[in-house]
Amino acid sequence: MTEAAYDTGNIFAKILRGEIPSHRVYEDEAVVAFMDVMPQGPGHTLVVPKAPSRNLLDAAPSTFGPLFSTVQKVARAVRKALNADGVTVMQLNEPASGQTVYHLHVHVIPRFDGIPLKPHTGTMEKPEVLAENAEKIRAALGS
Amino acid sequence: MTEAAYDTGNIFAKILRGEIPSHRVYEDEAVVAFMDVMPQGPGHTLVVPKAPSRNLLDAAPSTFGPLFSTVQKVARAVRKALNADGVTVMQLNEPASGQTVYHLHVHVIPRFDGIPLKPHTGTMEKPEVLAENAEKIRAALGS
Repeated sequence: MTEAAYDTGNIFAKILRGEIPSHRVYEDEAVVAFMDVMPQGPGHTLVVPKAPSRNLLDAAPSTFGPLFSTVQKVARAVRKALNADGVTVMQLNEPASGQTVYHLHVHVIPRFDGIPLKPHTGTMEKPEVLAENAEKIRAALGS
Repeated sequence: MTEAAYDTGNIFAKILRGEIPSHRVYEDEAVVAFMDVMPQGPGHTLVVPKAPSRNLLDAAPSTFGPLFSTVQKVARAVRKALNADGVTVMQLNEPASGQTVYHLHVHVIPRFDGIPLKPHTGTMEKPEVLAENAEKIRAALGS
């Protein structure tokens, strides 16, 4: 298996550079968090380090402390904001795992008793729904 | 939602204390990695911090750097050891997400093109299969 190079034209790189809009809920010097536009459930949020890497396999180990501290903050916030029963944290590496965007990102997905995750259908959520959930999550992060 | 207390009698606490055997592939001062006995695919490995927490939501943020640096090492090793096409990293919080053992742990699952993850069936893998995969992963970690 060969390692593919990091592609600076990937959609998350464009979001990080502000070339594409996103519903951001958090940003610090190392990490940005924004709503997944094809959520596997309400409140599905992505936590993305600013440092470029294709996925977890090629990331600098120094990425992980700041990244997963923010994953924890966002996981607590989405649970509170969506009144969820649990949270699934998922990180995919290479197409065999379902990775579709080649910039390291962590899925933080609120879970509700008895409700399975939706598949990656490719269906875009309505912008107003994303905006409303983002506002709830920002409020939970701020409190 | 109330936070449940950490239960020192959980099965991973017993494994960490050496009261229950496991197929260990890695150990350092902060983290242990061993084979999942009910794997969702061949080579399914768990990475577990020694520090007690119920899951990611209540863990000390200082846990995450060492934990996910080891997740990276193990992810690279299982990919190499199993000749996998990708790796799924998953971390579950509370029963709604599928969490069944209440000590923070990260699933590292080798993935193969076109082969879906097996569900958590509750079926135990044969010890000789776990031992063989553990040996391959230890070899990949050492190289």
